[in-house]
Amino acid sequence: MRLLLTASVVALSFAATAHAEEGMWTYDNFPIARANQTLGTHIDQAWLDRVRLSSVKFGGCSAGLVSDAGLVMTNNHCVATCVANLSTQAVNYAETGFTPRTREEELKCPGGTAEILTDISDVTERVRAAGEGLTGQAFNRARDAEIGRIEQEACGDATDKRCQVVTLYRGGQFKLYTYKKYSDVRLAFAPEDRAATFGGDLDNFSFPRFAIDAAFIRLYENGAPAETPTHFTWNASRPVENTPVFVTGSPGATQRLLTQDQLFTVRDVVLPMDQLIASELRGRLIRFSEESEENAFIAMDPIVGLENTYKRGLGRMRALTDPGFMRMKAEQEADFRARAEAGVGAENPWTALTAIQPIARELYPAYALLEGRTGIGTTPVAGGSQLFLWARTLVRGAQERAKPSAERLPEFGDARLSGVQSGLFAEEPTYPELEQLELEWWLSKTREWLTADDARVRTLLGRESPEQLSARLVEGTKLADPAVRRALWEGGLAAIEASDDPMIQYLLSIQEPTRAIRADWETRVQAPTDQAAERLAAARFAAYGDTVYPDATGTLRLTYGLIEGSDVPGQRWGAFTTFGGLWDRATGAAPFDVAPKLLAARDRIDADTVLNMAVSSDTIGGSSGSPVVNEAGEILGANFDSTVLTQRNAYGYDRNTNRSVIVTTGAVTVALRDVYGMDGLVRELGVR
Amino acid sequence: MRLLLTASVVALSFAATAHAEEGMWTYDNFPIARANQTLGTHIDQAWLDRVRLSSVKFGGCSAGLVSDAGLVMTNNHCVATCVANLSTQAVNYAETGFTPRTREEELKCPGGTAEILTDISDVTERVRAAGEGLTGQAFNRARDAEIGRIEQEACGDATDKRCQVVTLYRGGQFKLYTYKKYSDVRLAFAPEDRAATFGGDLDNFSFPRFAIDAAFIRLYENGAPAETPTHFTWNASRPVENTPVFVTGSPGATQRLLTQDQLFTVRDVVLPMDQLIASELRGRLIRFSEESEENAFIAMDPIVGLENTYKRGLGRMRALTDPGFMRMKAEQEADFRARAEAGVGAENPWTALTAIQPIARELYPAYALLEGRTGIGTTPVAGGSQLFLWARTLVRGAQERAKPSAERLPEFGDARLSGVQSGLFAEEPTYPELEQLELEWWLSKTREWLTADDARVRTLLGRESPEQLSARLVEGTKLADPAVRRALWEGGLAAIEASDDPMIQYLLSIQEPTRAIRADWETRVQAPTDQAAERLAAARFAAYGDTVYPDATGTLRLTYGLIEGSDVPGQRWGAFTTFGGLWDRATGAAPFDVAPKLLAARDRIDADTVLNMAVSSDTIGGSSGSPVVNEAGEILGANFDSTVLTQRNAYGYDRNTNRSVIVTTGAVTVALRDVYGMDGLVRELGVR
Repeated sequence: MRLLLTASVVALSFAATAHAEEGMWTYDNFPIARANQTLGTHIDQAWLDRVRLSSVKFGGCSAGLVSDAGLVMTNNHCVATCVANLSTQAVNYAETGFTPRTREEELKCPGGTAEILTDISDVTERVRAAGEGLTGQAFNRARDAEIGRIEQEACGDATDKRCQVVTLYRGGQFKLYTYKKYSDVRLAFAPEDRAATFGGDLDNFSFPRFAIDAAFIRLYENGAPAETPTHFTWNASRPVENTPVFVTGSPGATQRLLTQDQLFTVRDVVLPMDQLIASELRGRLIRFSEESEENAFIAMDPIVGLENTYKRGLGRMRALTDPGFMRMKAEQEADFRARAEAGVGAENPWTALTAIQPIARELYPAYALLEGRTGIGTTPVAGGSQLFLWARTLVRGAQERAKPSAERLPEFGDARLSGVQSGLFAEEPTYPELEQLELEWWLSKTREWLTADDARVRTLLGRESPEQLSARLVEGTKLADPAVRRALWEGGLAAIEASDDPMIQYLLSIQEPTRAIRADWETRVQAPTDQAAERLAAARFAAYGDTVYPDATGTLRLTYGLIEGSDVPGQRWGAFTTFGGLWDRATGAAPFDVAPKLLAARDRIDADTVLNMAVSSDTIGGSSGSPVVNEAGEILGANFDSTVLTQRNAYGYDRNTNRSVIVTTGAVTVALRDVYGMDGLVRELGVR
Repeated sequence: MRLLLTASVVALSFAATAHAEEGMWTYDNFPIARANQTLGTHIDQAWLDRVRLSSVKFGGCSAGLVSDAGLVMTNNHCVATCVANLSTQAVNYAETGFTPRTREEELKCPGGTAEILTDISDVTERVRAAGEGLTGQAFNRARDAEIGRIEQEACGDATDKRCQVVTLYRGGQFKLYTYKKYSDVRLAFAPEDRAATFGGDLDNFSFPRFAIDAAFIRLYENGAPAETPTHFTWNASRPVENTPVFVTGSPGATQRLLTQDQLFTVRDVVLPMDQLIASELRGRLIRFSEESEENAFIAMDPIVGLENTYKRGLGRMRALTDPGFMRMKAEQEADFRARAEAGVGAENPWTALTAIQPIARELYPAYALLEGRTGIGTTPVAGGSQLFLWARTLVRGAQERAKPSAERLPEFGDARLSGVQSGLFAEEPTYPELEQLELEWWLSKTREWLTADDARVRTLLGRESPEQLSARLVEGTKLADPAVRRALWEGGLAAIEASDDPMIQYLLSIQEPTRAIRADWETRVQAPTDQAAERLAAARFAAYGDTVYPDATGTLRLTYGLIEGSDVPGQRWGAFTTFGGLWDRATGAAPFDVAPKLLAARDRIDADTVLNMAVSSDTIGGSSGSPVVNEAGEILGANFDSTVLTQRNAYGYDRNTNRSVIVTTGAVTVALRDVYGMDGLVRELGVR
C-alpha cells in the first residue's frame, strides 16, 4: 500500500472518449481501423469472426478453443471449483494436479457450461417500446417481460443454445446475443494448485508473477468431444516485447459510465460494507481452515475466491479515495456536462441520479444482505451457502413458475429455466460445517447491519440466535442430495409447500421481507437509475459519437494493446518473468513453496523460459482465461490477473497503470510436456 | 444502517466556536457563567474543585469516588480485563459476578492504577522555548526532553504521584497535570457480565438500553482503604427529565480541530485499514471462541474490546462519509479561514497540513502496523499479543535506559519508568493459543498491507510464514512468568542481549525497521503537523478567543447538558428505560438473555425503576465510567456508552444527535441491594 498510494501523483490522462488502447469493445463495434493504426496491424472482419468463434465463455471466466476436438484453455483458478467438486480429501486433485492420460479419463465438471457467441442483433427499439410511458416497478416488469419474450422467441426450448438480451451503455442499446451452448464440459488438465497459485493471495493482483495459472477443459456434444474446426493456433514461441496483442473474453463489470454522485455511493456505502463483512468472513474461514486438515481442504476454494474478491475491492477503494484519480473523473464529467447538458431538456439525468443516491445509500445494506443482487456489490447472500441458495431457487422457482412467464421474476422466465435447472441439479458436494459457518456469519452480519430491532431481522431470526438457527437448518436439511432437489423442483409449489425440510420451510418464511426489499430497490433505485442512464447514454452518443464503448457486462469483448512492462511508481518492472525467477522467489514456506511436481522437474526446464508476461490491454475480473492473440490469430497465452493499481479500471482506464498479467503458452507447454507428462495434449496442440 | 444514513438530512447547526452544551472543557477553563446561564444552575469554583477531586481516572476509563473509604464507581466494562485476569475457567467471575462480602475479600486488579487530578499549571513557554528554531526529529527530541525534565522536576521519584505534561489545542497550550496516584486498586463489586452487557455488541452504541454496566473498585494506600473525605454523595432517587447534569471524566481523543484535508486522510486511509483488519481479527476470534468452552472463556474479553472499537469506527466512517456532516465541517473551516487566514503570514498552516497529507497517507500503514502509535488509528500492534508487547517493553526499555533520560524515546524517560514497570510486572495471565492467533494475524496482515517484497516485512518474517513464526515464538518464550520479566528488566541491556528467549531475540531483531518507520513518521508527519497545528491554534485563539475548547486527550474534562431523549431520524426515543423494558426485550438467546441472578431477582425489583437514561452532554470513548453529577454535586449515574450517531462527535459536536447513555444510581442500588446482596456497599453508600 505504501507504494501504491504514491501512484496518485502519476500524471493521469483520461477523457470521456476512449484513448488509444482503451476500451472493452463489443465485436459488432470494434474500432478496426483505429486498432490497426495504433498497433500497426492489419486485422479485418474475417479475423474478428474467427477470433470470436474461437472465444469461449466458461462460467464467470473466459477461455479459448485450441484444437478441433473441443479443447479449450482457461485459467486454473477458473476450474478450481470444478477441481474441488471432483476431489475428496483423499483424492485431492488440487494437491496432485488433474492429469488424465486419455480423453476417457477426463471428468465432467458438475454444473459446468460453456458458450460461444454466434450472433448479435439489435433489439433496442422493442425493449424501449415495452417500457414507454411507464415508471418504477411497472417499467421494470414490462421490459423484463419483453426481454423474456425476445429470448424465448429466439431460442425456444433449445438446449444447445442460449439467448440473452444484453444491456449496453447502461441502457443506450439492447442487443440479442445468441450462444452455442455446451452443457457437458470436462476437465482435461489442471496443474497442482500451488503451481497455479504460487505466492497465493500475496502475489495476487501483482507483477512480477510466477504462476502457471492455466488449465484445459474440453467441450463435449452427445457424449463425444465437440468438433470445433475454428480455433486458435498454439504458438509457444518466446514472446517479444512490444508485440501487438488482442485479448478476447468476457470482462465482468465496469462502472465507467457512472456519474460522480453514483461513484460516491460506491465509495461511501457499497465498498466499505462489502469489504468489512467479507473481511470478517475471511477471518472465520481462515481460523476454520486451521482447525484440521479436513477443514483446510473444505475451505480452500471458498477462501481463494473470497480473497480474490476482497483484494479487488481494496484496489477499487484505493482508486475511489485517490485524490488524483477522482479529480480526473470529475474533469471527465465536467467535460461531458459542458458538451451535453444544454441538450438534455427538463429531465436532467445528472440531477435525477443525484436525487436517487440518498435512497440508494439507505436501501443498499438491506438489499445487499437480503438479496445480494445489486449489481454493484459483492456481498454473498447467506455467505454463499449452497444449501440456502438451492432452497431459494426451489422456493422462488416454484412460486414463480405458478405464474405466466411474463409476470415472473425475470430469472425464472421460460427462457432461463434450463440454466436454472442445470445449476440446481449439478452433483456438487456440500460440507455441513462450512455451510453452517457461512449461514451463521450471514445471519449475524445481517442482524448487525440492519440492527436487531429491524422487522426483517426479526423475521429472519425469530427468537433464535444466528448460531442456533444456522445449526438447525443445516443439520435438518436434505437438500445436499440432488435427487431431493430434483423431486422438489419437479413437484412444483405443492411439493414445496408440503415439504418438511427446514431449509425449504425457512426460505418460505422469509419470502415476504426479501421480496419486499428487492421490489423497493427496483422501484426506487434501479428503474429510475436505468431511465436516467439511458438519457445519459443518448447524450453521450450525441456528444462523442460511437467512439465510446459500453461498460463491461460479462459479454464478449475485444481489447488490444502491447506486451510491455510498467514504469510508474509502485509498479516498475519489465514485461516478462521466467522459471528462474520462480526458483529465486521460493522460500519453501506457503504460499511461496514451489509445487512438488514442478520442483521435481526443475532440471528439465530452461530457466530462461518466459513464465508470465504483462500486456497493456484493458481487462477486468471476468477477463480471467481470456486468450491473448496476435495479429495472426495465434494464441500466446491466457490472461489470469492484473495488478492492484489496475483495479481502478473498474471506474476509468489509465494507459499508464493498466496492465494485465498473462500466463504464456510457452510456460503452459513446459508444464504439459516437462512437468505433468501430458503427451496427448501436447500432440493435440501441435507442439513440435 | 438504513436508519442511520437518513440522519444526513438532519439539519446540522455547528460553528467553529462552541454552542450551548458543546465542549469537553478543561477544569481550568470551564465556562462557569455560560453553563449556569444555559442550564439555570449555580455552580462555582468550589463546586468545580470538589467535583474534580471526586473524579478518578482508572486506566482508560473514568470513575467517581462515592465514599470516604476509597470506594469508586465505574463501568463494568472498565473492570472487565481485571475480572478476566482474576478469573479462571472454573472460577469465572464474568459468569457469576464478583461479590465480596467483606473488604478483605476485595481482590487487587493486576496492574490497575487510579489517579486523581490535584493540580494544573501552565508550562507552555518552557516547552515552546525548547523547540524554538528546530524542525523534524530534532524538534521532537528537544521538546520531549524538556517535557521529561518538567515531569521529573515536579514528581521526582515519588510513587504516589504522577506528573504529565499535557498538550492542549494541538499545541496551543502545554499544561503540567499532577495526579495523586493509587497503585493498589481492588475490585469491590462486579455484576454478572451479561447483566452489564445485555444485548451485547448489537445493543452497544445504541439506546434504548438495558444494561447495569456498573462496578465498584476501591483505592488502597499502604494496604488499607484510602481515606477520601471528598467524594460524591450517592443519590438513587428517580431521575427527572430535563434535569441539568454535569459529566466529569477523561474523554480519550477527539479530532475536532483537524483540517478538512486531515479528515480526508482519516476517511480514506486510516479508518478503512484499521476497520478492515480489525474485522478479520474479529472473524478469527469468533471462530476461535466457538471451538471450545475454554476458548470462549479466553476470547471473551478481547472480542468485547475489539467489537467496541470496531463499532465506534463504523460510526466514525459514517460521519466522514455523510455528505451533510462533511458539508458542515467544510463550512466551519471556511468560516475560520475567512476570519484568520489573512493574519497567519507566510507559513500558512492549512497549506502546510495539506502538503503533509500525501506523506501521511503513504506512511500510515507501515507506521500503524509496525508501531501502532499514530494517535489517530486503532490497529493493535502484534494483534495485542501481551507477550510481544512485554518483550518490546523489555528490549526497548533496556536499549533506552542505557542512554541519558533526555535522549530516550519519551515513554522511557525517567519520569515514566515507574508506570512502565507496574504494567510489566503485573500478574496477568496469558493464553498461548490466543497469543499465537493474535501474532499470526498481525504478521499476516502486515505482510499483506506492506507486501511480501517490503524489506521490513522480510526482516519481520525471514523465510518463515506467519503461522510458523508465531507458533515458534509463543511456544518458546518464558515471558508469561512475571519473575522472568522482572529479571530481564532489572538485568538491563546485558541481560536482554544474553537472553535466549525467542520473543526477546525476535524483538531485538526487528528494532531497526520498526524504529525507522517511527522516526520517519515523527520527522515527516508528526513534527510538521504539530508545528502547523500550533499556528492554527494561535489563529483560532485570535479569531474566537477562549470560547474554544481543546480536543479531548485523555485528560480530565467537564461537560454539561440535560437528561433528555432524542427526536432525530434513526434515533427517536424518550430519556429513560426501565427494568420492565429489560424483561420485555429478553428472548433468552444470547446476547438477549437476562443474567441468571438478575432474572432470579425479578420479583423483588420494581419494573418501573429507571435502568438507563440518555443525557445530551458531550462525551466520547474514555468517558466510560464518568460520574453524572447534578448541581448539588450528587452522583446520579455513570456514563457507559453513547449512540452510533454520536460517534461523529469525534470530529464535530451536534446538539441534535449527541446523546450519552447512563446507568443510573437507582439501577445500581437495585443491583447491589436486591440482586447481589451487597449489603456492605449499600450501607457504605448511605442508601436508606
